[in-house]
Amino acid sequence: MKTLSPPRMSSPPFLFLPSSHSTFYSTLLSFPVHRSLSLFSPSSPPFHFSLTQIPSPSDPSSTSFSLTVPTFHAYAHTGSVRAPLTYAYYGRVEDFDKLGSLGINVTGTVVLARYGKIYRGDIVKNAQDAGALGVLVYSDYEDYAKGEAFPAGPWLPQSGVQVGSVFRAIGDPTTPGWSCTAGEEECERVSIEEIVRRGDMLSVPSLPISGKDGEELHKAIGGQVAPDDWRGREGAPVYRLGPGPGVVNLTYIGNETLRTIQNVFAVIEGREEPDRYVLLGNHRDAWTFGAVDPNSGTAALLELSERLYKLQKKGWKPRRTIILCNWDAEEYGLIGSTEWVEENRELLTSRAVAYLNVDSAVYGPGFYVSATPQLDALLIEASKMVFLITYLHIERLGGGGTDFAAFVQHIGVPSIDMAFGDGYPVYHSIYDDYLWMEKFGDPMFQRHVAAASVWGLVALRLADDEILPFNYISYATELKGNAKSIEEEAAGCPISFSPLYKSIEYLKTAAVNVNAEKQALEEKFWGLSSRKDKSKVRELNDRLMMTERAFTDREGLSGREWYKHLIYGPSKYNDYDSKAYPGIDDAIEEAKKSNTTDAWRFVQHEIYRVARAVKQASLVLNGGLT
Amino acid sequence: MKTLSPPRMSSPPFLFLPSSHSTFYSTLLSFPVHRSLSLFSPSSPPFHFSLTQIPSPSDPSSTSFSLTVPTFHAYAHTGSVRAPLTYAYYGRVEDFDKLGSLGINVTGTVVLARYGKIYRGDIVKNAQDAGALGVLVYSDYEDYAKGEAFPAGPWLPQSGVQVGSVFRAIGDPTTPGWSCTAGEEECERVSIEEIVRRGDMLSVPSLPISGKDGEELHKAIGGQVAPDDWRGREGAPVYRLGPGPGVVNLTYIGNETLRTIQNVFAVIEGREEPDRYVLLGNHRDAWTFGAVDPNSGTAALLELSERLYKLQKKGWKPRRTIILCNWDAEEYGLIGSTEWVEENRELLTSRAVAYLNVDSAVYGPGFYVSATPQLDALLIEASKMVFLITYLHIERLGGGGTDFAAFVQHIGVPSIDMAFGDGYPVYHSIYDDYLWMEKFGDPMFQRHVAAASVWGLVALRLADDEILPFNYISYATELKGNAKSIEEEAAGCPISFSPLYKSIEYLKTAAVNVNAEKQALEEKFWGLSSRKDKSKVRELNDRLMMTERAFTDREGLSGREWYKHLIYGPSKYNDYDSKAYPGIDDAIEEAKKSNTTDAWRFVQHEIYRVARAVKQASLVLNGGLT
Repeated sequence: MKTLSPPRMSSPPFLFLPSSHSTFYSTLLSFPVHRSLSLFSPSSPPFHFSLTQIPSPSDPSSTSFSLTVPTFHAYAHTGSVRAPLTYAYYGRVEDFDKLGSLGINVTGTVVLARYGKIYRGDIVKNAQDAGALGVLVYSDYEDYAKGEAFPAGPWLPQSGVQVGSVFRAIGDPTTPGWSCTAGEEECERVSIEEIVRRGDMLSVPSLPISGKDGEELHKAIGGQVAPDDWRGREGAPVYRLGPGPGVVNLTYIGNETLRTIQNVFAVIEGREEPDRYVLLGNHRDAWTFGAVDPNSGTAALLELSERLYKLQKKGWKPRRTIILCNWDAEEYGLIGSTEWVEENRELLTSRAVAYLNVDSAVYGPGFYVSATPQLDALLIEASKMVFLITYLHIERLGGGGTDFAAFVQHIGVPSIDMAFGDGYPVYHSIYDDYLWMEKFGDPMFQRHVAAASVWGLVALRLADDEILPFNYISYATELKGNAKSIEEEAAGCPISFSPLYKSIEYLKTAAVNVNAEKQALEEKFWGLSSRKDKSKVRELNDRLMMTERAFTDREGLSGREWYKHLIYGPSKYNDYDSKAYPGIDDAIEEAKKSNTTDAWRFVQHEIYRVARAVKQASLVLNGGLT
Repeated sequence: MKTLSPPRMSSPPFLFLPSSHSTFYSTLLSFPVHRSLSLFSPSSPPFHFSLTQIPSPSDPSSTSFSLTVPTFHAYAHTGSVRAPLTYAYYGRVEDFDKLGSLGINVTGTVVLARYGKIYRGDIVKNAQDAGALGVLVYSDYEDYAKGEAFPAGPWLPQSGVQVGSVFRAIGDPTTPGWSCTAGEEECERVSIEEIVRRGDMLSVPSLPISGKDGEELHKAIGGQVAPDDWRGREGAPVYRLGPGPGVVNLTYIGNETLRTIQNVFAVIEGREEPDRYVLLGNHRDAWTFGAVDPNSGTAALLELSERLYKLQKKGWKPRRTIILCNWDAEEYGLIGSTEWVEENRELLTSRAVAYLNVDSAVYGPGFYVSATPQLDALLIEASKMVFLITYLHIERLGGGGTDFAAFVQHIGVPSIDMAFGDGYPVYHSIYDDYLWMEKFGDPMFQRHVAAASVWGLVALRLADDEILPFNYISYATELKGNAKSIEEEAAGCPISFSPLYKSIEYLKTAAVNVNAEKQALEEKFWGLSSRKDKSKVRELNDRLMMTERAFTDREGLSGREWYKHLIYGPSKYNDYDSKAYPGIDDAIEEAKKSNTTDAWRFVQHEIYRVARAVKQASLVLNGGLT
């Protein structure tokens, strides 16, 4: 698969930084072997879909179209099914509930669902749980073709398809929680049967299809008219729910096989604190041309590596070690970054200061950032230095969409994720290419430069500030707000949030005190600082660094033990969604369904667990034993 | 219960160290309310046991006998049972297997078992699992009265009883994995029903009884003659297995109730590295007078605190912080130390250099030590400085008998446990008093002094050496030896230990390299050491400190998740026994029974888990990311 970590890229992406090295892992990847889809409807002759994206001849990339991967869902179940169609809107749990309430039985059908609201792996899982035998996920014009199609406009052409993985966990599917180095003779692996049993790989076949093919299928679905908001764009055929009369024959044959992946690193050793790491990461693998995803980010990383090289030429060395990471197999399930974090878990836990992720650097206009809250202030300062921002809205890192997941959610490293734009219609299609970027994504390419600048400035502050630029007051404020909203969600339920509020108060007090300590030390620096101050600074920085770790719990989220962070983790039903307190949230969802005493006691238990983690964090930040 | 953390002791045990403070927890303790035992045998009239120990009038302590706790098993099940007797030797799993093989059915009987080989809580558990309705555990003359009884000799008098806890877990039973500070309004607790369900509290009543009462009961047991090695001392009645004809009426009523316990600390802040902790611990609570257990240790701790006070008077300050810990409620289940470790888990994990435990400092002659292997060399050096030792045999810390458990087995802190003597006949009886110690335990009291000296010297080295005196080569050697013996135990089984051996080789290489680094740095110190060296030393010390943590696994031992350490943990069937690789050992035991493919696959999984932990440890010791 040429487009997956092509050898020519794998060795020296950091051409400006001589000292680069690689780590290689043997992981389970997934490749399409055979795909076919036919429609049989009473009204018209059998129709066989080509399942091919059509490149525009006017697009220079079209000449190398043959190098791109066929449209498929990585890790999709190999199988063949012939069944009537049903329509399930965005394939969310609530959409299947709605179908149930309308008396539509999805069992034994092939579900047609739209991309755009939740992770595709969860669409297929929800359909499977509802009894579907197969799933077709398409890009509705309403969502992806709101204007002129590429190359005339930025929108997805009729034949455009969103390729992608439907693996529902993180990292190599066969090594959950650990890693297998390539060439290692003996290494434990779990079987594919076991992965399926866990629900991480699915047991019904699925395919991604184009807007045009989706519309064809809609025409063959009869029965009740879909609810108003489930309709297509103006001029689209009337969407109905089925089942049938249209019947599809869906066949997918995939090849899941062990392949070697390669992460590439460049290390700039710290002058004063070589054993403290500021990590910058971006992935290298792409489904197609990947001008946006990930090459806009990779370009920014290369730009950054050149600037760091120039700084070193001038004699600069960072106070702490800077590590540039170029990940492989992100598209399959954040595999490169996750295997490396799992392999180096213990050392990273005691030494990682922060992880700064940029996946796609540029989708379009607008600067979109997510961060663990102690980094909010730094992120705003750095952004102001690069471009005038009147206001920066900062999201959180509960979602699992990209390579920060293992750092935040498995080992608790303060992290940032940033990009220009928030999504784009040609995502994971063959139209994500240079022409699209040049015409629509970043015509002047100044967004690439700006991304590299903010990324680099944040990194320099974290690597060079004598006292780490972390502020935990914003963390306490954030936690309180999150607690309030989840408490409202559970209004009237037999549970108490006061243990959590109490712990948050401890954290807030600790945050205020530590900021005062910082200020006192910084004032000292106007004079010469003694070695006593140096060790005091080290001690203070260790507290600032380790506080985030304390939000992780060794038992992890119930039923999803790999996720150790009790504040930020993906929601159970949509891996893209960012939730605070996922454990409490899931427990409440369950308890509202069953409404048993035990279920509510379990919710209270989850609240206590989080409260205890926040208390541990406040003790670490205080730096004093009881 | 006056004898439990008497108020007069709780505040200032560290009278020589002004800056002492306390932590208070609300924990579930257990007190006897009613005990009765009657024997009904065909041959003789009903006999009602007094269940009272008789103090010797010539013993000064006898005057305060009324302050001692009645003989009981803490946390024993409240209940009344009338059933025939059976005899089960030491109450080990193999003893009940033996009974089965001899056709003796224990179900529905009251088991009479001997103290001396395994933890009393496991005796009762094994009997309960075998179907017993009640358990009587006595001190057989053969084990506890080999010579003249106290006060004439050191041996246990006929009426002597070993009191003790039968709680089978560690820490406050109601707060597994966390702690409840006294006065905290809202704090999560698990119910007693849940504790019983987990098998940590038992569901059949039990009592500890004297050698004399044990012999009385033996006389009433008929049936098969017990195997030769199960017999009593010469002149003892012939031991038979039963059931019956003797029938006992056993009643125990206990009161499990929340009480406040108090740990007392004295902190000597480090000059250069205040954020690195060398912890010394001993417990304060005693079942009776506790001249040996724990007051010989407490005396040593007070002696030590006076010496440290004098050093400070001379202007000495340690390089690292020294913390003297005086634990409460150790006898109930290591509660004081465990609650504190759980409360301060995250901070201790990143800052604790070592924990040095002394429970009873003096039982008698001979110096007995246990340690995590990187401390072997230091322990030998310190011992040599105090007294001529030709050879020091060092045990490991897998057992759960005293306060090092939470430090080693829950969070992975390098630890030492030491004492003069290895057990004594009057253990946990009213005869463990000053007269016994003066006449038999330590007539010259020089062992107390020596214990304080070794303890203090080890502490000073750990607190003041610029580079931590840890040597991991001995750890690698030890691990390899343990692997060999467990491999032999599993000879011919369908499993491979080579992943483990491979990881141990990594660790050994890392240990050799780190020792070379140590030497290189130490040589530098002959000249003036620059600040760069200082930070290098800090970095090296952090690796030496954190390597032990990496032996812990966040998932913990299967079925006993509180135990995180994969190398050292208690055996499943005897909490006193120290095993290496307990997870592998338990899995092999299970697999040998069931002999299924899955069971052997699970053994292999456990081997892989340990191998991965050792690999993580070697990466930490190397201090380099992959």
